[in-house]
Amino acid sequence: MAVTQIKAVPAFRKTAETFTSGAKTLEQKYFVSQEIFGEEQEKIFSTQWILVGHQSAIAQAGEYFISEVAGESLIVVRDKRGEIQGFYNVCRHRGTRLLENRNGQLSAIQCPYHAWTYDLNGRLIGAPHMDEVPGFDKADYSLHAVNLALWEGFIFMNLASASTERGGYKSLEEWFTPLAGKFSHWNLPQLRSAKRIEYDVHANWKLIFENYSECYHCPGVHPALSKLTPYDSAENDLCEGPFLGGFMKINKSKSLTMSGNACASPVGDMDAEDFHRVFYYSIFPNMLLSLHPDYVMVHLLRPQSPDRTLIFCDWFFHPNAFDHGDFRPNDAVEFWDMVNKQDWHVCELSQQGISSRAYEPGPYSARESIPAAWDRYYLRFMN
Amino acid sequence: MAVTQIKAVPAFRKTAETFTSGAKTLEQKYFVSQEIFGEEQEKIFSTQWILVGHQSAIAQAGEYFISEVAGESLIVVRDKRGEIQGFYNVCRHRGTRLLENRNGQLSAIQCPYHAWTYDLNGRLIGAPHMDEVPGFDKADYSLHAVNLALWEGFIFMNLASASTERGGYKSLEEWFTPLAGKFSHWNLPQLRSAKRIEYDVHANWKLIFENYSECYHCPGVHPALSKLTPYDSAENDLCEGPFLGGFMKINKSKSLTMSGNACASPVGDMDAEDFHRVFYYSIFPNMLLSLHPDYVMVHLLRPQSPDRTLIFCDWFFHPNAFDHGDFRPNDAVEFWDMVNKQDWHVCELSQQGISSRAYEPGPYSARESIPAAWDRYYLRFMN
Amino acid sequence: MAVTQIKAVPAFRKTAETFTSGAKTLEQKYFVSQEIFGEEQEKIFSTQWILVGHQSAIAQAGEYFISEVAGESLIVVRDKRGEIQGFYNVCRHRGTRLLENRNGQLSAIQCPYHAWTYDLNGRLIGAPHMDEVPGFDKADYSLHAVNLALWEGFIFMNLASASTERGGYKSLEEWFTPLAGKFSHWNLPQLRSAKRIEYDVHANWKLIFENYSECYHCPGVHPALSKLTPYDSAENDLCEGPFLGGFMKINKSKSLTMSGNACASPVGDMDAEDFHRVFYYSIFPNMLLSLHPDYVMVHLLRPQSPDRTLIFCDWFFHPNAFDHGDFRPNDAVEFWDMVNKQDWHVCELSQQGISSRAYEPGPYSARESIPAAWDRYYLRFMN
Repeated sequence: MAVTQIKAVPAFRKTAETFTSGAKTLEQKYFVSQEIFGEEQEKIFSTQWILVGHQSAIAQAGEYFISEVAGESLIVVRDKRGEIQGFYNVCRHRGTRLLENRNGQLSAIQCPYHAWTYDLNGRLIGAPHMDEVPGFDKADYSLHAVNLALWEGFIFMNLASASTERGGYKSLEEWFTPLAGKFSHWNLPQLRSAKRIEYDVHANWKLIFENYSECYHCPGVHPALSKLTPYDSAENDLCEGPFLGGFMKINKSKSLTMSGNACASPVGDMDAEDFHRVFYYSIFPNMLLSLHPDYVMVHLLRPQSPDRTLIFCDWFFHPNAFDHGDFRPNDAVEFWDMVNKQDWHVCELSQQGISSRAYEPGPYSARESIPAAWDRYYLRFMN
Repeated sequence: MAVTQIKAVPAFRKTAETFTSGAKTLEQKYFVSQEIFGEEQEKIFSTQWILVGHQSAIAQAGEYFISEVAGESLIVVRDKRGEIQGFYNVCRHRGTRLLENRNGQLSAIQCPYHAWTYDLNGRLIGAPHMDEVPGFDKADYSLHAVNLALWEGFIFMNLASASTERGGYKSLEEWFTPLAGKFSHWNLPQLRSAKRIEYDVHANWKLIFENYSECYHCPGVHPALSKLTPYDSAENDLCEGPFLGGFMKINKSKSLTMSGNACASPVGDMDAEDFHRVFYYSIFPNMLLSLHPDYVMVHLLRPQSPDRTLIFCDWFFHPNAFDHGDFRPNDAVEFWDMVNKQDWHVCELSQQGISSRAYEPGPYSARESIPAAWDRYYLRFMN
Repeated sequence: MAVTQIKAVPAFRKTAETFTSGAKTLEQKYFVSQEIFGEEQEKIFSTQWILVGHQSAIAQAGEYFISEVAGESLIVVRDKRGEIQGFYNVCRHRGTRLLENRNGQLSAIQCPYHAWTYDLNGRLIGAPHMDEVPGFDKADYSLHAVNLALWEGFIFMNLASASTERGGYKSLEEWFTPLAGKFSHWNLPQLRSAKRIEYDVHANWKLIFENYSECYHCPGVHPALSKLTPYDSAENDLCEGPFLGGFMKINKSKSLTMSGNACASPVGDMDAEDFHRVFYYSIFPNMLLSLHPDYVMVHLLRPQSPDRTLIFCDWFFHPNAFDHGDFRPNDAVEFWDMVNKQDWHVCELSQQGISSRAYEPGPYSARESIPAAWDRYYLRFMN
C-alpha cells in the first residue's frame, strides 16, 4: 500500500462541509474486534514511525529509557558519541529481558542472567565461556537494532526493516516533509518536560484521536476550557492526511491554565498573533501535539487492546523557563489533567455504547470534519 | 424452532418417576463451553422474554433504571404518560453510552458527549449544529427501542424484533397464558421491594435453576430451612415446559424467617391452606418466583459467562405492610440470604466438579424430576 | 511414541561439548503458545507419571490431600488398610466437587450437595432415595480412580489409562528402573517435610527446568550460593533422557544454609565424599530433587499457563532430626528461599524477552549441556 503524502494546505479556513457531507463514524468492528486490533498492530504500529519520547529525557551518554511499540519492549539509549540508539530489549543468548527499569544510566548493557554484555551500540563485548563453543563469534550476536530518528527533538521508532514486503518505508525526514519549518518558532528540540502523567483509559485508541480532533463536545464536556477558548473558533489548516489540525483562539490576555494566566515565559519567539492561539495537531498514529504560547503539551498513545489505551502526557517548557520566578508549571498541568480526564471519560462512554448491537455508524456534524478525515486516513491502512 | 406452550397441569401430585426414569444431568459442554454460552445468549436471551424488574421501582414519570440483557445495557423509563418504555443505552450520534447511573429520574435523555437530547419516548429533540448538515432529519435518529411488556407487575424485555428469522415471538400475554390468573391472590402488581441483594456466583446459570428446582439437597445443605418446611413435602403442579414448580408445606404457625414467625401482614387474601404453603416456580429463562404468605421473593438471573452468574434477589411486600408496626422484613431477608449463600456454594462446587474430564452425566433421583424437566425444556433451544 | 529408557551413565565426568555443540534454545512457540501448552497438558501431563507429594503427608488412615494434575483436582487418600488411593474429586451424581480443603482426615467421602457417600476405596456406600430409581445400582457409581504409585516414598499419579492409544504407559517401577538403588543412602521414604513454600512464577515451566539444570548463571545470580559451592564444579552422571543431573562440590565443612553450617543431623548414612556434595537431579516432567547431606529439597512444578507456573518447594529431614537440639531447618529454608527467588526472577525475565518478535533461539554454552539435553527429551513428546 502506497501512503502518499499530502501537501501542506494553505492556512485559510476550509468549510467543513467540503469534507464531511455524509461522513459517518467508523463501523463497530474497528473498536471491538481483537482481530482488527492485531491487524492495526501489524499494519500501522509495526510499519509507521511511532513517537517514543523526547531527546531531552536522555541528555547524557549512557542515559536510557524503555519504550514500547506494538507490544515490544525497546531500549532507547544515548551512546558514547552522543547518538541515540534503539534496540530490542532481548538478550541474544537465552532471550532474557535485559533492562527492567523504565529509565536510568549505564556504561554497558549486561544481561542479568548469564552476564552477556553489550556496549551502547549493541555490540556483544562479553560472553563468559562462549569461547569454549567451536565457531562462536561475538560479532554474530549484537543486539537487534530498531530504526530510530528524530524530528524536532522528538524520538520516533519504526519496527519495519528497510526492505519489507510493503516496499520499505519513508525516512522520518521524508515523512515529515509536509511539516518542514512549520513549528520552528516553538523551539521544540530545546524544550524540556516539567511533568509527565500516565493515564490508563478504557477506550479504543482511535476514540482518543476522534475526541482530540473536534471541539463540538467542548461546551458540555469542558466548561472551564470553553471559557478561555471559544469552542467555535477552530480554524484548521491541515485537513486531510496523516497530520491534521489547526488553531483555536485564546481569549485576550488569557492562557489555558487553572488561573487563566500564563504560567511560564514563552516557549519561543512566536508571531504576535500566535500569543492568542493554541495549535492542536494530531500526528498519525500516536502523537497529539498541542502548542501553547507558554508551553507545549504532547500526548503519546500506546494501544493495549481494542478497549484500552495507555496515554502519556508531557508538559514541555523552554529550558530557561525553569529558572524564572514566574514558573508555575502546575497551573497548566492541573488544568489539562482536568480536561484530559473529562475527555477520557466520554471516550470510555463511547467505547461502552459502541460495543452494543444497537450501534451503527452515526452522522458526523460539520464540526467534526477532522475526525472524519482522520478516519479516512486510518482506513487506508486497513483495507 | 417452534416453542409450543404446554397447558397448565392440574394441581394434583404427579409421581416424579413418570418424568425422570433414566434422566441424567446435562453434558459437560453445556456448563463450560464459551461457544455454548454464546449460543444461549443468541438463541435464548436474545429471543425470549427476560425479566428486568418490577414496575414499582419506577413509579413516577421520568424514573428509570438500567437493565442488562444478553450483554446489552438497556434503559427502562416511565414516560410522561405513565407508560414504561425500553431503549438501547446508545446515542445515535457517535454511539456514546447515554446513562451511567443504575437508576434515577430525568425529564429528557441527554448524551454527555455532544448533548444530543432525546425525550422519554426516544425521539431526538435536540442535536446542536446538525441543521448545518444537508439532509439531516432528527426523525431518523430516535433511540433504538426494545420490546417491553408487563406481567403481574413485572417488566420483561425481548431483544428480538417481531420479524426475526425465527418467526418472531409470542407476545408476553400469550407467553404467560398458561399461568393466567394463577397468582392473582398474591397481588403481585401492587407489591414493593423492601430489599435487594446482588450475588456474584461462580457457577453456570443453569446450575442455579437445577438447584432451585429440587429439595433433595435440603437436609444436608439447609438445616434451618428443613426445620420449617419438610424437604419431602413438595407437590409440583407444573411439571413440564417453561414454567415449573409447585408448593412445599410450611410447618404450622411458622414462616420462613429467622425467627420462624411471619414478618409482615399477608401479601394478599390467599386461601386458608396457602398460609401453610410456600410456592416455588421457575420462569424460563431467568426468573425464580417464591410466594410466601407474608412476602414474595424473586431471583433475577443474569448470566455473565459459562462459569459466572449475577443474581439479583428482591423481597417484595404488600405496600400497606411497610406502615405496620409488625413489619420486620429483615427477618425474611436474613433467612433467605443465609439459604441463598448455602445454595450458591454448592452450585459453585458443582461448577468446579463438572469441569473435570472425569465428569459424566449422572442419574437424577426421583426427587429431581423438575430439574430434569427444566433441562429438557432448555435443550429444545439448543439443538 | 515409544519412550525408551537410557541406561544409567557411569558417574565420570562427560565433557559437556559432546552434547551441546551447536545446540540452541527452544523456539519461541514452546514458551508462548496456548496451543502448545494444551498439547503439553495432553501429551505429557496426562500420560506421564506426575509427582504429587510424599507419603509422609498422609501417614494415618483417612488422611488425604488434594493434588492437581493437568488441571484436574485429585483426591489422594490413605485407606483403612494403609494403602494410598487416588480419585477424581468429582461426585458421580451431579458432578459436585467433593472435597474443598487442601488436606484433612476423614472416615468417608461425603458429597456436600446431596450427601452421596463413598468409602476410602471410592465405593458408593450411601445414596439417599436412589433406591426409588429403577435399575440403579450403587456398584455402577464408584469414584473414578486414578493410577497412583510410589517411588522412594514419593507419590506419583498418571491420568492415562492402561490402554490408551499411545500404547499404555510403563509402571512407575519400570519408569524408574534407571535410578534403581541410586538414592538409597538418603533414606527418602522415611523423610518428613519441615516446611513447604509455594511460589507463583510468571514463567513457562520449561524455563524452570532449564534454569535448574545449569550453574552458568550462578556467579551473577547467586553470589551467596557461589561462595559455598563452586559454580564450575558440576559433574553430571545423567546426561540424556528423563532423568538428568549430577553433583556439585560443597566447600569443606560447609552446608548450603544461611549460616553455612549443617542445620540438622544427616538424612542418611552417605559415603564420606557425599558429605561435600550436593546432588541435583531433574525428574521429567515436574520434579526437581536436590540431595544435601543434611536435608533433601524437592520442587514440584504445576504449569498453569504458557507464562505461569506454580512451584511447591519442600524441605525434607530425617524423622529423628526433628527431635535434636541442633535442628534448625529455617537455616536451609531461608537460604533456598533466597536462591529460589533469584532463580524465579531471571526465569520471569526470560519469559518476557522470549515473547518478543526479536527472540530467536540462542546458542547454549558448554556449561548448558543439561538444559540442552532436557530440551531434546522434551521435544520427543511434542513432535
